[in-house]
Amino acid sequence: MLQAALRSGAAHRRAVFEVFARHLPGGRRYGVVAGTGRVLDELDGFRFGEEELTYLRENQVVDDATLAFLADYRFSGNICGYREGDLYFPASPIMVVEGTFAEAVLLETIALSILNHDCAIASAASRMANAAGARPLIEMGSRRTHERAAVAAARAAYIAGFASTSNLMAGRLYGVPTAGTAAHAFTLLHDSERAAFEAQIATLGPETTLLVDTYDVAEAVRTAVELAGPKLGAVRIDSGDLAAAAQEVREQLDSLGAFNTRILVTSDLDEYAIAALAAAPVDGYGVGTSLVTGSGVPTAALVYKLVARETATGKLEPVAKRSVGKPSRGGRKDAYRLMDEAGHADTELITTGGVAPEGGIPLLHELVRDGVVVGREPVSAARARHAQAVATLPQDALHLGRGYAAIPTEFA
Amino acid sequence: MLQAALRSGAAHRRAVFEVFARHLPGGRRYGVVAGTGRVLDELDGFRFGEEELTYLRENQVVDDATLAFLADYRFSGNICGYREGDLYFPASPIMVVEGTFAEAVLLETIALSILNHDCAIASAASRMANAAGARPLIEMGSRRTHERAAVAAARAAYIAGFASTSNLMAGRLYGVPTAGTAAHAFTLLHDSERAAFEAQIATLGPETTLLVDTYDVAEAVRTAVELAGPKLGAVRIDSGDLAAAAQEVREQLDSLGAFNTRILVTSDLDEYAIAALAAAPVDGYGVGTSLVTGSGVPTAALVYKLVARETATGKLEPVAKRSVGKPSRGGRKDAYRLMDEAGHADTELITTGGVAPEGGIPLLHELVRDGVVVGREPVSAARARHAQAVATLPQDALHLGRGYAAIPTEFA
Repeated sequence: MLQAALRSGAAHRRAVFEVFARHLPGGRRYGVVAGTGRVLDELDGFRFGEEELTYLRENQVVDDATLAFLADYRFSGNICGYREGDLYFPASPIMVVEGTFAEAVLLETIALSILNHDCAIASAASRMANAAGARPLIEMGSRRTHERAAVAAARAAYIAGFASTSNLMAGRLYGVPTAGTAAHAFTLLHDSERAAFEAQIATLGPETTLLVDTYDVAEAVRTAVELAGPKLGAVRIDSGDLAAAAQEVREQLDSLGAFNTRILVTSDLDEYAIAALAAAPVDGYGVGTSLVTGSGVPTAALVYKLVARETATGKLEPVAKRSVGKPSRGGRKDAYRLMDEAGHADTELITTGGVAPEGGIPLLHELVRDGVVVGREPVSAARARHAQAVATLPQDALHLGRGYAAIPTEFA
Repeated sequence: MLQAALRSGAAHRRAVFEVFARHLPGGRRYGVVAGTGRVLDELDGFRFGEEELTYLRENQVVDDATLAFLADYRFSGNICGYREGDLYFPASPIMVVEGTFAEAVLLETIALSILNHDCAIASAASRMANAAGARPLIEMGSRRTHERAAVAAARAAYIAGFASTSNLMAGRLYGVPTAGTAAHAFTLLHDSERAAFEAQIATLGPETTLLVDTYDVAEAVRTAVELAGPKLGAVRIDSGDLAAAAQEVREQLDSLGAFNTRILVTSDLDEYAIAALAAAPVDGYGVGTSLVTGSGVPTAALVYKLVARETATGKLEPVAKRSVGKPSRGGRKDAYRLMDEAGHADTELITTGGVAPEGGIPLLHELVRDGVVVGREPVSAARARHAQAVATLPQDALHLGRGYAAIPTEFA
């Protein structure tokens, strides 16, 4: 594409690409914007180095003119987008990339890869956080997804309401709080469960979390409180009927005077399992597989479409394909969220006219100006924004069942 | 865990960890081993550098003794495993890691992350390859998954039978053949579809693949053959009823004398959609989303479990947890595939006794000896092995419906 467009000359035409979702897969009620900060991080280093150019040359992937273009490549255009942590709905233009066709088209894969992954994880995480209410969620899914995706998943989950992650690289790179517990291997390594608990308490203190389901839960809880005393921080249950087990363990802990010892549950939890445990005496959830795989929706169905391009006469003109079932809507857009009198989100308004609706909250913000990143912000800001945004949704948007988008998208 | 085990002294006990799947998720009939080579690549660089140590120290994640251990960390143990491209079944010990507890437990996350991702993708890809038969599959899913997972997915898909990938980094890093087509944006960029086709043919020749569904398929095909002549390489259809569209386009191409112009179809294909197109005049498939998300099974459910450890008296002893519904099977294992008289796979035999069954094919091969990687091989070897392994399966193992493992796992 790039080579042909360079040769035809069209590569240098001004172009506007838009990232949006035609629908919210899995019957989700809203999407969560995540990954924007990672796109900006990647953009800074998005260059073609010697290794890449040598590969392309030696394998004759592109011609010399294209190689020369790539050697000098750096994005010099503008990007605006929804802020990270905000919500999105069908057709919301969550990122708008403007530059020459050549420089903007090269960003398609990196922008979509990051946004499709991170938005999918954050959208699942937000549902889990809604289901968990005030109880904290620990992200523990690193072992169930690609090693780098794991770090991004921990970041996205934190934005969408998780309290912490067991992924230390996410702690180091993004400041996500970290937490963890022992595995069964730690207990099995020692000559007895008692010896394992003693070793853990000796180094981490009685406030630690002990894993109690390696052999017999009741016996493990008895040993745990005997060794750590009533100041034992928490116990983790990772198998069985979690609601029943939590109830039994709570009664046992209370009978042993360990009233403040918390109960953490893990074991293939998703938002439905978390909701089903709402009445159980559970103090926190560790979530792995279903978080990092988007709980049934591992990718956000976001696309990157050309919506306007310069004509031969230098005018920016809307364009749209007409493919059956997959049409696109031409023209550069603005987006606003309209609120009702009670302060709840009411409508996602997409405009092409450039006139801002009265009282509408503008959703597009400047991220990159003339190739320079201007929209960077800490992950904590995205996390705070998400909590605020979810609070503006109508109550029924938080139901876990499949449904339509929580608010309608309208075009003006 | 590490800190407590270092303090209790148990960290230095010899330990054996095993990677296996308790079941094949999604009713799959067999799993495909992929990622082994990536685990070996990562192992070479698996160190804790200044940045990591500073983070751990400043955030008081671990104590000084643990920091000192991590600063000197390098794996010095042994790893054996199934070879990449081979098949696996429930309980198959696809990787066995032996070292001190401390050095082996640190590999859990990286080993599982890689294997859970890559095996999931390869297992889905193998089903798609079976469904496609002799027709080539192009991997085109980079935009639908995490940016690094995309590269690993292209590698896994190639091992499991895909012909090529649109991910150029997979080409550069792993030698996967690359292929690609133009996007709708390329057509929209130009003043007309004709101008776009002319530009593409001018630089890539008539053997290129033209995308024909941006506006009107029949008109696009007419224009394409008019411009490229009957030597036009291929057309791509990306929307609509693909079987019907392929039939119409085939008839049109033939009527225009373009008998050898191939038809490539794309548009949310999975193994079922591919199978449903078997009777349609399709010459190749481009597969994206469903490949990189494991076609409904985004993670392989592999676990990393301690199966043996040194006792206080220096003896290696089997260990197993007894958690409800998630028991493990203690002891270091060997694995063999037993074949029937016709040369078909018959039984996956897992032994702990050390005696090889007569005629059984040994499945565990040495990968790392005393910390040094000895089992590296080119991706092409894994690809060839997979083709051979699939050919040994009983015919019904290739059915796409949900079912049990294609051959039983037995323990001796």
